[in-house]
Order: sequence, then C-alpha cells, then structure tokens
Amino acid sequence: MIRAIELSIKSVNTGTGPFGSVIVKDNKIISEGFNTVTLSNDPTSHAEIAAIRIACKELKNFSLKGCDLYTTCEPCPMCLSAIYWARIDKIYYANTRNDAQKIDFSDALIYEELNKSIKDRKIPMHQIMRDEALKAFELWDKKTDKVKY
Amino acid sequence: MIRAIELSIKSVNTGTGPFGSVIVKDNKIISEGFNTVTLSNDPTSHAEIAAIRIACKELKNFSLKGCDLYTTCEPCPMCLSAIYWARIDKIYYANTRNDAQKIDFSDALIYEELNKSIKDRKIPMHQIMRDEALKAFELWDKKTDKVKY
Repeated sequence: MIRAIELSIKSVNTGTGPFGSVIVKDNKIISEGFNTVTLSNDPTSHAEIAAIRIACKELKNFSLKGCDLYTTCEPCPMCLSAIYWARIDKIYYANTRNDAQKIDFSDALIYEELNKSIKDRKIPMHQIMRDEALKAFELWDKKTDKVKY
Repeated sequence: MIRAIELSIKSVNTGTGPFGSVIVKDNKIISEGFNTVTLSNDPTSHAEIAAIRIACKELKNFSLKGCDLYTTCEPCPMCLSAIYWARIDKIYYANTRNDAQKIDFSDALIYEELNKSIKDRKIPMHQIMRDEALKAFELWDKKTDKVKY
C-alpha cells in the first residue's frame, strides 16, 4: 500500500486524479497503475484498470487468480467489476468512496444507475435488432474450439 | 448496429467472445470495438471498452458527450460504468444479459456483488492505511491547476 500511495501522489503531480494501485503475486509487486484519465484521454484508465492490464500482460493470462490488489481508494463500479472479471483474490483499499466524494470524485450516481431497470436510467437504452444479433451468439455456442472464460 | 453485429461475428471467427460495438457521432461511426479478452489477455477488453478507448483517442477527449453507442449485447456492469464515466448520450443494444447467460457469459454475479456491503462480498476487501492515503487527496484538493472531470 505504501507503493500505491506513492503512485497516487505521483498521479497528482502529473496532473491527473489522486489514485494509485499495485497488484501483488507471491509477495511480489507484478504491476503498478495510476489514474491517467485526463492525461491519456481515456475515461477507463483508472489506477486499478491500468494495474490489471499490466499484470495480465506480465503473466500472459486474462486471469489474475492468486493475485491481490492494493488500491488507495475503494474501487468504483467499473473497477470493481473489472476486478471480478480478472478473478483477483483479495482487495486492500485505503480511502473510502465518501473520502473521494469530498474531493469531487463521486461514483454514487453510477452505483445507483446500475441498480435501476433499463427504462429508468439517465442514459437512455433502446433495444434493436436482437434477432440479427443472436446469430453471433449461436455461432459461438456451436464453436467447438473456443476458449471459455 | 449492422456494423456492430459484423464485428461480433468477426470476434467469434478470431476465437474470442461474440460481442461488437461501434460509437457514432453526428451520424458517423468514429470507433469500432470487439471483445479481445482471451486474444489479448486483457479481461477489461470488452467490445464497449475497446470502442470507448478508440473514440476518445479519435476525439482527443476523455468525454464522449454527443456520441451514441451501438452494442450487440446489453453492457456488463464494467462497461455500463465506463459508459457513464465517458458521458455517452444514448445506448442501443441488441441481445439481453439473459441471452448472454444462455451461452455462458453471465454478469449476474457481478451485478449482485456490487449491491452488497463490503463485508458481504465474495472477494474480501480490507481497509488499511487510510490516514496515509488521504495525503494524496489533500494534495489534489489544494491543487489550483487541476483538470476536473
């Protein structure tokens, strides 16, 4: 966590959000990430996502089973979902989402929106062309040499 | 959506999950993405995230205000959160999360986990070193030349 905090300070100094993360496997740091949203014009480049991508590249695996994540703030819903997709074992966090809200980084709206039914969300969602799109699902279902995950 | 479906079929043919997305601004496709999780060893590389990253690079902006997303499947919680962070205007989707579940792509667990309190989640979350981590938040708060988002 000491290293993650160093990264969060580096992040502020480079002019982007104050968040840092590291991923640890077998007591060794295998990747580091810090927030670069405004720096790299990538709204998905939160510290946790950055660290996950690098760790997966390092291990040549889309699964981080056996790894722990240290992050300076409670993950937002995007990062928490990514942590589940990556199958990380354990999360250590420092600041809370309320601490983040106090400095104007709020994910409360997103947590609320995920819980709403599709028709009640602030971003409108319209379903179209399901019959046509199912074709790819059927192809996948019949594929015999697929890598499941 | 026709193009997004083409991408989802391409995705199956290249051996990775059957999902495609495009982002449209002023009636023009500005980015395309398809799932490359197993291909690129990146669990965050869902079609929507890929399309968002490319669109932001294209527009040199971390905001996609004024853009619509066409995606062949209802977004998972990671992608839906990313869509909110990217401030996309409207979502058009084809297959539902239930259709995805039928071919073994289920995000139901993640939707459930996001709703749980920290102590009840399947991936354990431990809070440590908050006092030390708050330092970066204070630095950010006092910074006068920051780019807010």
